[in-house]
Amino acid sequence: MVRIGKDKWIAAFEPRMTPVAEAEPGDTATFETHDCWHGQLLCAEQRIESVDFGSLNPATGPLKVLGAEPGDLLSVKVLGIRTAERGAVSIIPGAGVLGGKVKESATRMLSIANGKVSFGGMTLEASPMIGVIGVSTSDAEGSVPTGTPGRHGGNMDTKAIKEGSTVYLPVKQSGAMLAMGDIHAVMGDGEVCVTGCETGAEVDVQLDVIKGAALDWPAVQDEESFAIIASAESLDRAAEEATDAVVRFISGYCGMSWEDAYMLASLVVDLRISQCVDPLKTVRAAIPLYVLKGHRGFLGL
Amino acid sequence: MVRIGKDKWIAAFEPRMTPVAEAEPGDTATFETHDCWHGQLLCAEQRIESVDFGSLNPATGPLKVLGAEPGDLLSVKVLGIRTAERGAVSIIPGAGVLGGKVKESATRMLSIANGKVSFGGMTLEASPMIGVIGVSTSDAEGSVPTGTPGRHGGNMDTKAIKEGSTVYLPVKQSGAMLAMGDIHAVMGDGEVCVTGCETGAEVDVQLDVIKGAALDWPAVQDEESFAIIASAESLDRAAEEATDAVVRFISGYCGMSWEDAYMLASLVVDLRISQCVDPLKTVRAAIPLYVLKGHRGFLGL
Repeated sequence: MVRIGKDKWIAAFEPRMTPVAEAEPGDTATFETHDCWHGQLLCAEQRIESVDFGSLNPATGPLKVLGAEPGDLLSVKVLGIRTAERGAVSIIPGAGVLGGKVKESATRMLSIANGKVSFGGMTLEASPMIGVIGVSTSDAEGSVPTGTPGRHGGNMDTKAIKEGSTVYLPVKQSGAMLAMGDIHAVMGDGEVCVTGCETGAEVDVQLDVIKGAALDWPAVQDEESFAIIASAESLDRAAEEATDAVVRFISGYCGMSWEDAYMLASLVVDLRISQCVDPLKTVRAAIPLYVLKGHRGFLGL
Repeated sequence: MVRIGKDKWIAAFEPRMTPVAEAEPGDTATFETHDCWHGQLLCAEQRIESVDFGSLNPATGPLKVLGAEPGDLLSVKVLGIRTAERGAVSIIPGAGVLGGKVKESATRMLSIANGKVSFGGMTLEASPMIGVIGVSTSDAEGSVPTGTPGRHGGNMDTKAIKEGSTVYLPVKQSGAMLAMGDIHAVMGDGEVCVTGCETGAEVDVQLDVIKGAALDWPAVQDEESFAIIASAESLDRAAEEATDAVVRFISGYCGMSWEDAYMLASLVVDLRISQCVDPLKTVRAAIPLYVLKGHRGFLGL
């Protein structure tokens, strides 16, 4: 059982990273994570402008997974997410989908307890999720800030990455080098105002390495679907990347022509917005698991 | 009980339309609908290029709803959708998210029975939905082909518009003038290849008029959420329109500041892709019903 404290964090996913711990396939690990503000936002009265924006979205790690090599998939099963008892949601002029309408920044502190999040007088259902999760980038990708999503993972802000889900990350460097952070106690698809319920957490995961099952983009499997997660400058481009990847995946996994896979995707795949504010946008293409059942492959359905 | 046969159809939603039938609030009506191909695509062997593309997406109607006036909402509860026993899915060079990769058009005929759709050797779960549903446009909007979505409804291709759902359409002209068509036995969010399982159907609805509850865009309520449906030239613009509308809706309906509504939307509203191929794109912003419960308003939750 590996445990990585939040004093061990990175600000960017890079081709060369020095691991702070090691694990074997099959091992469990616990990551203690900072909130996206790196603990700098203390109360609703504090001005957002007092925060150092140069150290946001820290990711705890990296953890070296022995045996993971380029061309493999790192499988990260999320066993549990224990959030702090307090979170924050903020709006900032110029940020988010409607940033042009925000006159001044504002923060609401939210209490998190017993699976609920209190927002003013309302009680929201908590659904803790991991905003930032990724591995070392390729040499070509170079250094990518933890606040940005990409083919290595990163700030995908995908609410399907939650307790019980398994994240698949394409390994780019020997040992994979897993890091994560930016937990939200609740967030809607889109994360429209630029923040969810931002909070610190402890995340328990189980690691595995799937040899030779390369994907072009990260993916996540939850109780209902297997979703490929693509990011680009616009939602339209992200939707195109996700569709291209999912059609090629279906064709290979189900053993059908590209044309049939494209038709099948139109019938059953849901293109879902993960986030549109990071500032790259992220779209996931979700295949219902029942469609993949009976086909042999690494999902083991 | 009104019944409108599929010999009564329109090719565009317009400010001035001649009704083919009338109904009172509370009445039920049955619409017999053509498939999106207007019945022209007869078998998999037929070349798509033989179809007259000038008469696609016919909508059955229009039905005048007595008492519906500009500024009201027309409520259309979908009581049932009985599809034909056969549907078709097609790919066309240049059409859909990956149209640039399609070398030649192709069609697969699909059988629909007992809640299932057969695709090759696979059995898909049917979930019949209404692709085109709308009312008379405003004088400013003018004539809009039934294949295009907009503030009047039209080709929104939103899979939440299914049996058990209620569609809310902003009334632009006296009598509303409801028409619908383009049923899909199954379709994924995105409709990535440009077609779902296209089929004819009979649709039973119950009509109502909600006085003075104007919305800027159509909306749909299903068992889990109330979603505002916006369309624009890009997914990014559609997402912005949907977010703007949903934040203003939450602010008014829940009686909270715009700023609080923007934060709440980021926490609980899902921005979902309806379709990205019509060629305007459609995004719906879905508020979980539990968030709206306890607030008085036309949803009666």
